[in-house]
Amino acid sequence: MTVNNAETMTHANAKPDTVTAALVVIGEEILSGRTSDQNIAYIGAYLARTGISLREVRVVADQEGEIAAAVNELRPRFAYVFTTGGIGPTHDDVTTDAIAKAFGVGVRLDEGAVQALRKHFNEAELTPARLRMARIPEGAELIDNAISRAPGYRIGNVIVMAGVPRIMQVMLDAVMPGLDKGRPMLTRSVRIDAPEGDVASPLAALQAAHPQVQIGSYPFFEQKRLGTYVVLRATGEKDLEAAHEALWTVIVENGFAAVRSETR
Amino acid sequence: MTVNNAETMTHANAKPDTVTAALVVIGEEILSGRTSDQNIAYIGAYLARTGISLREVRVVADQEGEIAAAVNELRPRFAYVFTTGGIGPTHDDVTTDAIAKAFGVGVRLDEGAVQALRKHFNEAELTPARLRMARIPEGAELIDNAISRAPGYRIGNVIVMAGVPRIMQVMLDAVMPGLDKGRPMLTRSVRIDAPEGDVASPLAALQAAHPQVQIGSYPFFEQKRLGTYVVLRATGEKDLEAAHEALWTVIVENGFAAVRSETR
Repeated sequence: MTVNNAETMTHANAKPDTVTAALVVIGEEILSGRTSDQNIAYIGAYLARTGISLREVRVVADQEGEIAAAVNELRPRFAYVFTTGGIGPTHDDVTTDAIAKAFGVGVRLDEGAVQALRKHFNEAELTPARLRMARIPEGAELIDNAISRAPGYRIGNVIVMAGVPRIMQVMLDAVMPGLDKGRPMLTRSVRIDAPEGDVASPLAALQAAHPQVQIGSYPFFEQKRLGTYVVLRATGEKDLEAAHEALWTVIVENGFAAVRSETR
Repeated sequence: MTVNNAETMTHANAKPDTVTAALVVIGEEILSGRTSDQNIAYIGAYLARTGISLREVRVVADQEGEIAAAVNELRPRFAYVFTTGGIGPTHDDVTTDAIAKAFGVGVRLDEGAVQALRKHFNEAELTPARLRMARIPEGAELIDNAISRAPGYRIGNVIVMAGVPRIMQVMLDAVMPGLDKGRPMLTRSVRIDAPEGDVASPLAALQAAHPQVQIGSYPFFEQKRLGTYVVLRATGEKDLEAAHEALWTVIVENGFAAVRSETR
């Protein structure tokens, strides 16, 4: 349950409570199950820590029309839309053409992007295929790629990044300083060695008593037994601590075996 | 690039070339990055092997309106829509209400689902929270859960499954025999220890020469070096083998270091 996913400002100079984002993962390899995506979890956690709330993810194939449609549906609905994948040099890299189509702009060979590529490649290596990576939609600003130099870019509220996790990560580092942020999401997590059915009723009461805290219940199945991770999330530290203490009281009163965890 | 994602029949009794599917992953824990989703890759690979092509994935929060909207956008566009998550006993499990809303039907306490729960829980354990797992949209057919008994269900072309991977997997096994299937997707994969920029031009020519085969190029970054996985996918074995042999010729002619792999 999400308590507050609207963009709200308490007063003009305050940080908004929530800045929202969506992510479009571009890649047939994810849909076919060949590759297990690592970027969704990384981006979701990274954004939450920095004060941007990831609200929707779409995985689409390497097809211009599908990418453009997803981006155009999402960009009016969220503060930012991130994309991963499809900006390499091969025939199945069609993200740039799709983004240009979505914005109704042309694609140009960007001199800044060519210069970036020259830092990594000599003239012989700078083949027509590699120069494809310097094709950038008109009006976009480049995002530095400290690893292999072929840049990402930002156009409007859409941030286009590579799919290779390590390269996506340096692009995210590069683009974040220029983005609006809300209050970072704080979390507390408790592992309870009892199935969700046993904790459901007290948890529902806890959620009702702590509306400012988002209380998630996540079953797990290990060694043929079901257990429950309870995750508390809030932007206010006092709200979070109050709910955490109340949860711990519930655990003690019900005699559940449980382990506190700060990190998951 | 996808060569054929339309549903086409060669003649009345033949298997369709492609049966398509979408997946809706329901869970705040995936969006917040707390949990790294394992179901997308499993379902994508499982469906591809059996002759169903996963064409789009959406990850949405545990919110009735968002789940219902995603399901209603996707179900007219694909042969099947699978969902994972949100059918447990806790307050944040809202998938069943969302699905009922999407179909405009009510939710009833299903006698078959109650019987299934009785196989796993005694009367004292069958709390109101657990009985929530027997709430099923009107008109749905149950899907057996061999592990913890709380069933999934199918309504129209929408297949609602648990989020816990092991439980989702037995539900997928249970529901598959009743689904239409196309021709299974066959794959061959080759790892080339050269960056995409070096292989892009011959790969584009290979794709043009083998339009019945979907040729994907996936960069990887290991030990500070970029390499390329080339994945060939086709429903016709002869088409696939011809493209594979042609790819191997390209590799030899260009002097690339490469490793064949049947499985990835």
